[in-house]
Amino acid sequence: MWNYHKKLQYPIKIKNTNPKLASYIISQYGGPNGEIAASLRYLSQRYHMEDDVCKAILTDIGTEELAHLEMVGTIVHQLTKNLKESEIENSPFGAYYIDHGKGVYPSNASGVPLNLTAINVMGDPIADLVEDLAAEQKARVVYDNILTVSDDPDVNDVIKFLRQREIVHFQRFGEALDRLQSKRSMTN
Amino acid sequence: MWNYHKKLQYPIKIKNTNPKLASYIISQYGGPNGEIAASLRYLSQRYHMEDDVCKAILTDIGTEELAHLEMVGTIVHQLTKNLKESEIENSPFGAYYIDHGKGVYPSNASGVPLNLTAINVMGDPIADLVEDLAAEQKARVVYDNILTVSDDPDVNDVIKFLRQREIVHFQRFGEALDRLQSKRSMTN
Amino acid sequence: MWNYHKKLQYPIKIKNTNPKLASYIISQYGGPNGEIAASLRYLSQRYHMEDDVCKAILTDIGTEELAHLEMVGTIVHQLTKNLKESEIENSPFGAYYIDHGKGVYPSNASGVPLNLTAINVMGDPIADLVEDLAAEQKARVVYDNILTVSDDPDVNDVIKFLRQREIVHFQRFGEALDRLQSKRSMTN
Amino acid sequence: MWNYHKKLQYPIKIKNTNPKLASYIISQYGGPNGEIAASLRYLSQRYHMEDDVCKAILTDIGTEELAHLEMVGTIVHQLTKNLKESEIENSPFGAYYIDHGKGVYPSNASGVPLNLTAINVMGDPIADLVEDLAAEQKARVVYDNILTVSDDPDVNDVIKFLRQREIVHFQRFGEALDRLQSKRSMTN
Amino acid sequence: MWNYHKKLQYPIKIKNTNPKLASYIISQYGGPNGEIAASLRYLSQRYHMEDDVCKAILTDIGTEELAHLEMVGTIVHQLTKNLKESEIENSPFGAYYIDHGKGVYPSNASGVPLNLTAINVMGDPIADLVEDLAAEQKARVVYDNILTVSDDPDVNDVIKFLRQREIVHFQRFGEALDRLQSKRSMTN
Amino acid sequence: MWNYHKKLQYPIKIKNTNPKLASYIISQYGGPNGEIAASLRYLSQRYHMEDDVCKAILTDIGTEELAHLEMVGTIVHQLTKNLKESEIENSPFGAYYIDHGKGVYPSNASGVPLNLTAINVMGDPIADLVEDLAAEQKARVVYDNILTVSDDPDVNDVIKFLRQREIVHFQRFGEALDRLQSKRSMTN
Repeated sequence: MWNYHKKLQYPIKIKNTNPKLASYIISQYGGPNGEIAASLRYLSQRYHMEDDVCKAILTDIGTEELAHLEMVGTIVHQLTKNLKESEIENSPFGAYYIDHGKGVYPSNASGVPLNLTAINVMGDPIADLVEDLAAEQKARVVYDNILTVSDDPDVNDVIKFLRQREIVHFQRFGEALDRLQSKRSMTN
Repeated sequence: MWNYHKKLQYPIKIKNTNPKLASYIISQYGGPNGEIAASLRYLSQRYHMEDDVCKAILTDIGTEELAHLEMVGTIVHQLTKNLKESEIENSPFGAYYIDHGKGVYPSNASGVPLNLTAINVMGDPIADLVEDLAAEQKARVVYDNILTVSDDPDVNDVIKFLRQREIVHFQRFGEALDRLQSKRSMTN
Repeated sequence: MWNYHKKLQYPIKIKNTNPKLASYIISQYGGPNGEIAASLRYLSQRYHMEDDVCKAILTDIGTEELAHLEMVGTIVHQLTKNLKESEIENSPFGAYYIDHGKGVYPSNASGVPLNLTAINVMGDPIADLVEDLAAEQKARVVYDNILTVSDDPDVNDVIKFLRQREIVHFQRFGEALDRLQSKRSMTN
Repeated sequence: MWNYHKKLQYPIKIKNTNPKLASYIISQYGGPNGEIAASLRYLSQRYHMEDDVCKAILTDIGTEELAHLEMVGTIVHQLTKNLKESEIENSPFGAYYIDHGKGVYPSNASGVPLNLTAINVMGDPIADLVEDLAAEQKARVVYDNILTVSDDPDVNDVIKFLRQREIVHFQRFGEALDRLQSKRSMTN
Repeated sequence: MWNYHKKLQYPIKIKNTNPKLASYIISQYGGPNGEIAASLRYLSQRYHMEDDVCKAILTDIGTEELAHLEMVGTIVHQLTKNLKESEIENSPFGAYYIDHGKGVYPSNASGVPLNLTAINVMGDPIADLVEDLAAEQKARVVYDNILTVSDDPDVNDVIKFLRQREIVHFQRFGEALDRLQSKRSMTN
Repeated sequence: MWNYHKKLQYPIKIKNTNPKLASYIISQYGGPNGEIAASLRYLSQRYHMEDDVCKAILTDIGTEELAHLEMVGTIVHQLTKNLKESEIENSPFGAYYIDHGKGVYPSNASGVPLNLTAINVMGDPIADLVEDLAAEQKARVVYDNILTVSDDPDVNDVIKFLRQREIVHFQRFGEALDRLQSKRSMTN
């Protein structure tokens, strides 16, 4: 089980509203490569993971992705909460606004609600860990793309932190995979 | 952010395997009225909730639903981990097994992956809280239906605990809605 | 069964084309909180409703939502039928136009086709009625959001009528729920 | 707009419960070729239909499909309302029951909720009418398949009526297409 | 099985980048009426086609649609590969870019990933061929719509070729349907 | 473009009907880890692949997966084409039969139509290749699971061939990833 601590993993203070950027960044909340998908993938794969160290890594990273989810939601919220009506209409945020107002809803940048077909749990530790490596690569690319289109330094500072964490997770999943494969080859 | 505690909210010890029952109970993991949907609904609605007490209730229940998610996953895992091949083939668990083995994957009882179209975040505190009341009612009904088809006392004991929590959540969301409406009528 | 009467429930006469507004309003045709979803939810819940008065309310409101569906389709049609090509390209209607031309298709404002995961029928009269209360609240919010972004008086006059009907439906479902709960407590 | 008449288009009186058959027949309620999909397809295509006779055919058949929807829902309801618990568990209806009890919910025979990606409205009268011809053929095949697996004469009598109506609709859409093409070739 | 030949069915040389147009044309890659949907529909219907000539037509057209898929992907790629960042941000391509960069991904113009609910295989040769007639009409309309909004001659030349092929396919499927119906009426 | 050769990559001759097994194996046709998903993933990633050798590998394997798709469809067809009605009703194939008869339709083992949310194209060669490694692992696991539940030697012989090819593809994608990373580190 989890306890909540009223504190973000990394501080977020965004000064300017930006509905277009919000409509892009929501993809890391509810897009196919976003933090919900990541967290649920890892937390679901734990049950069938045969090795306790690898299981702890899944729990650990799955829990950190929940913290990232909260951060991404906070970015979207800060970018939109003080929007004026005129800003809404003249941005790609308009379509999102019709169905969700200024609420934070799990969709991708195109407004497609998250479908968990985007994640997999195979009940096979090796396949699951390679899936996780792919997940971290894909999340890293989305953060790259956000940095390409954003020029808000308050936002980019946070996105760079989140991007860096995905690289660290990629490395940890790589180590977990090595560990599992060595252990198996020793047993055989 | 959240901290993980290696402890279930309520103890689970299931003695017998039962793939059919597992294929039903997975619906409270990844079905439209399940614990993932519930948790993400409440945790996402927090950002735009105007009242701090109501926001705390959303955080609190959203966090507890994560604990329930872990419990439902544990039930499914315990019901299937020692399955023999012959048991798989002769049960509705067969179709699930092909794509996920004995892993825990977020689908409903029919094997449909969770689509977050099942939840809503409207950016309107009143609408969101009425949505939450409905969510708790629907989750309660699914637990009722599971109790109708299950005769495993180890499972039913846990399901009854989870069902009871939904009723408590329904009451808390009702109080939150009352609070918000009183506050608004005082302001106007 | 139903008979068709060649008459809108409320008259619609829109003078100006507006593809952007059309692309927003389509959400009340085929979005998760739109009139198709509402009508099908109520008409489907009728079968298992134990109380005849409540069943009649479901039939009645479900049938009225079909009339609203026809009205929303008419708004979208009137806003787009005389569009010039140049207007299409420079609006969010462009993407919709590629796949549906000037036809009226059940998608939300982002162009996502309606997935009925958005509605629920639980076979439990209490849960179904609370779901209906939430549905009416959510539809009301979408009409609020449309009014926020629209400044066409011909459109807004109709939208206000539709919004008001959702509030009336919310009250009727509230009365139905009270009735059902009183009746049950008297029986017990 | 539509008026409701408390009468089925064709009488339904099913004596025996049959959850497996119910779980198959629900496909004509909420499957990709079912009555909801058919009705919404035709009623949505009306707006952009250039010819008034063809428009009236779309309205007429679209309205009749609502009556068929009501009939299919009634079949499913009669096949399941008196089910005993033991019957639920030992049938493919079990998975459906977990999420919807004995309620009537728009899914296909596999339990997949209706996604309106299954229908199209192209804003092109010729393309729309050919789509409608295909829709009627596909609905006819599903009724054929139901007749193959059902041996309940009370059910089959109704299914044969519904199947026959699809054949009539196919003919009427064929005539509408001929009419539109003749009219166009005369104009050109 | 198939052999790949490193050659497009029709040459493509697009001089200018155009992200908006790319975001529209992707619909014929991964939209409900696009080339993937077409190819998979025909190649899947082959197995149960009773007549060898008709089966060969399905294989033939299904294989040609793969070539068209490659061509549509090439158009999208050429329209976007040299995009500058500033062009991305100020176009509807922005949302697509966040999740897929300049990659070619099977979605429609609104960014909705392809759901194969858009196609049908009924195991009934007549119904399948009428479905195919509808598919060709719908694909033709989408190419019409693209030509309406595009003024790039390099693109339009290719789109006109693809549009013309759909018309030829429509005729061939019409002949296949006639053949099948004559053959059946001779047998009966 | 592709040429069709009327020959399977590996011969298939299945003597006995088996609807249950067919309903499982269809997952490698239209499931999230099946051959359609694999082929479209690789063929779509080609456009943005910077290295010609890696691009050729994507084309090559993407084309081979089309041959595997044809093989999987053939297995399903041979397992069902001579089914008797009584066999349909008493197997999990029943639900599939209602909507698709004995046709070959792209769904997973639970009857969920393929949603291409299951695949990704990131426009980033490294991320795409790691995604491909994961895809091959997941496909291998599904073939493992099919072998667990199948005892038909005619089927298993083919499944083992297909499983072995996924392992070879995994190795080739690993080599492609190494090549790309070496090339990049030499350039930097």
